[in-house]
Amino acid sequence: MIQKPIITLLSDFGITDSYVAEMKAVIISINPKATLIDITHQIPKYDTKIGSYILAKAVEYFPKGTIHLAVIDPEVGSSRRPIILEAKNATLVGPDNGLLIPAAEKLGLKNVYKIENRRYMNPEISSTFHGRDIFAPAAAFISLGEKPSDFGKKITSYVKPSFICPKISEHIVEGEIIYIDRFGNLVTNIKLENIKNKLSKKESKFKVYIENKKQISLNLSEIYCEVPVGAILALTGSGGFIEISANRMSAAEKLKAEVGMKVKFKF
Amino acid sequence: MIQKPIITLLSDFGITDSYVAEMKAVIISINPKATLIDITHQIPKYDTKIGSYILAKAVEYFPKGTIHLAVIDPEVGSSRRPIILEAKNATLVGPDNGLLIPAAEKLGLKNVYKIENRRYMNPEISSTFHGRDIFAPAAAFISLGEKPSDFGKKITSYVKPSFICPKISEHIVEGEIIYIDRFGNLVTNIKLENIKNKLSKKESKFKVYIENKKQISLNLSEIYCEVPVGAILALTGSGGFIEISANRMSAAEKLKAEVGMKVKFKF
Amino acid sequence: MIQKPIITLLSDFGITDSYVAEMKAVIISINPKATLIDITHQIPKYDTKIGSYILAKAVEYFPKGTIHLAVIDPEVGSSRRPIILEAKNATLVGPDNGLLIPAAEKLGLKNVYKIENRRYMNPEISSTFHGRDIFAPAAAFISLGEKPSDFGKKITSYVKPSFICPKISEHIVEGEIIYIDRFGNLVTNIKLENIKNKLSKKESKFKVYIENKKQISLNLSEIYCEVPVGAILALTGSGGFIEISANRMSAAEKLKAEVGMKVKFKF
Repeated sequence: MIQKPIITLLSDFGITDSYVAEMKAVIISINPKATLIDITHQIPKYDTKIGSYILAKAVEYFPKGTIHLAVIDPEVGSSRRPIILEAKNATLVGPDNGLLIPAAEKLGLKNVYKIENRRYMNPEISSTFHGRDIFAPAAAFISLGEKPSDFGKKITSYVKPSFICPKISEHIVEGEIIYIDRFGNLVTNIKLENIKNKLSKKESKFKVYIENKKQISLNLSEIYCEVPVGAILALTGSGGFIEISANRMSAAEKLKAEVGMKVKFKF
Repeated sequence: MIQKPIITLLSDFGITDSYVAEMKAVIISINPKATLIDITHQIPKYDTKIGSYILAKAVEYFPKGTIHLAVIDPEVGSSRRPIILEAKNATLVGPDNGLLIPAAEKLGLKNVYKIENRRYMNPEISSTFHGRDIFAPAAAFISLGEKPSDFGKKITSYVKPSFICPKISEHIVEGEIIYIDRFGNLVTNIKLENIKNKLSKKESKFKVYIENKKQISLNLSEIYCEVPVGAILALTGSGGFIEISANRMSAAEKLKAEVGMKVKFKF
Repeated sequence: MIQKPIITLLSDFGITDSYVAEMKAVIISINPKATLIDITHQIPKYDTKIGSYILAKAVEYFPKGTIHLAVIDPEVGSSRRPIILEAKNATLVGPDNGLLIPAAEKLGLKNVYKIENRRYMNPEISSTFHGRDIFAPAAAFISLGEKPSDFGKKITSYVKPSFICPKISEHIVEGEIIYIDRFGNLVTNIKLENIKNKLSKKESKFKVYIENKKQISLNLSEIYCEVPVGAILALTGSGGFIEISANRMSAAEKLKAEVGMKVKFKF
């Protein structure tokens, strides 16, 4: 048994309804020693792609042994499987729809198990709320020391999310906007290492073309305040991706940019 | 004294102001061992009816001994009484305006006490924030083992909320929309047992008429994915009531439905 | 080492992104015994003034030894300094931009230290997220018993926020709206003691002029229900300031008032 186990929660349930509290109540009833930490419950409804991005960004900062419970589950009640992922120093619980994979692969995915042992589920199972009746109890029992293999058989095929990698050629890197945060920063799927060798020493400016016809000429900055208030800049965000931002303003608003739009960096 | 007492919090205070944190600070100052779990603070302002619905939905999943602190309190400072409800395996604290009753009755209401013992209140009492100065300390002292009867005298008359029960005749069940959740699911006050014997074996379709003139012909589904994306369905929600939903979309938006609208099921 | 240390969190990060969870993950990795309590993460973006108001309102209710971590940091990565404030019975951690000062002064500010000891920071420091990489670890190490003086040298000059005090003359008190809460209450910077001796015993009505030309004649009320639903009143709010409110409605909407508007009380 883990001394003071941490269970994180991520979902698209919002914070207005009682759904999150019902999951927490189930966990704390099974393991009163669990420490519960919300990642977020404000993922856009049904959006497993954004959910998987946020989950993958957050998991690496949690201590060894943390259990991550993530529920974005538009196919709840259907034949989509409930699964447990054994990763290096962490366990992830949720639906088999790709949501958990990027986080597990970042941590080091080891094994995937199907949850089928009825003993670890709530006595009654609502067909619309497996978060409360299957996933929350699974996370709680893992925090009590049950092994992922106790829950069901190991599986080798599972749903993988399709992430687009940036296309890299000599003077051009093409990617997309994968996320926009509260501050309007445009997070791309392009990493510093994808563009580092293209930035010449004396002329570090490059052109950014967004799918909506907007184009800007930018330096790679270190901090927001390098440019005047409201000016656009590019920098490496706290998640390691290149972000297009505006100093103290929303780049998303200024550039009318949206998640999913293609971006092209030209050097 | 409870080993590791759980105190839940529900209010209409929102999460932008410091009101919720002030209540938590008061509780944790009195009992540093309390585990605090938010149900929600996003109840529409002053809406004790929706608050009582959400509270009643959440309480049953919490472990024995949980203390529920709920504050939606438009008459704060007036003669409305602060009360403690002793229920089966739980205690509820809040204003005497009906908010706590459905939850307490669901759990099994035993006794109601008025909070009048000044010893269990903050030294200074703001006339606009009894949540912090009367209810939070009461919940904290209960978690330390004080008895509800220590706080004041037992009372037998208290405010009961007026809930409309569905009207049931041979081929028709009439109810209303009591709640709409983040996903746009229309929660009615009609339970499966109210309509089960009306669904014939071969023809399980029934007609739903909403007050706003919308009408739909539906089966009772088990899961959302039984119908195409965007199609309307009816199913038993996780709270036990019949809900009108749309697969991966908002039934509330599609049907322009609102809380309080009458619904009629015709078999 | 504090037995069961409390760390509060306040920021403008919102609750949609993973930023708050990343800070909590860092803290709990350093000190698994820390109890984390959110004040709010919904401060308007970059608004250190509103942030400092909310922080100062909340801190006084927390127990002795609480550590307050507050991050509203538009100049992150620049030369603005990360600081620790030693106050009476509390410690505050955050950027040197005025955010922490009103709270620390309310509690009793003793000493200010610069955070410069690399040993107490994350191994990698993102130039855009000192909340996670500098401030969260600092708060966590303080909760383990490290002294503020271990983090860096004592400083005597630091950024002080410019708060406007009300101007008081014989029959007039002039102030401003410093905050509007979820309920639409207009919190002014005028305290009861500023106006108490101006309220005559038999005629306690006074006139309120708002910068947007609205004017109302008011009594100082004790509770909201003293006036009819929707009517405007003035009372001493739970933070000790005079607030202009509407019974069960939003005074901000009714009076079209905004933060920063001047108010004049005439007796």
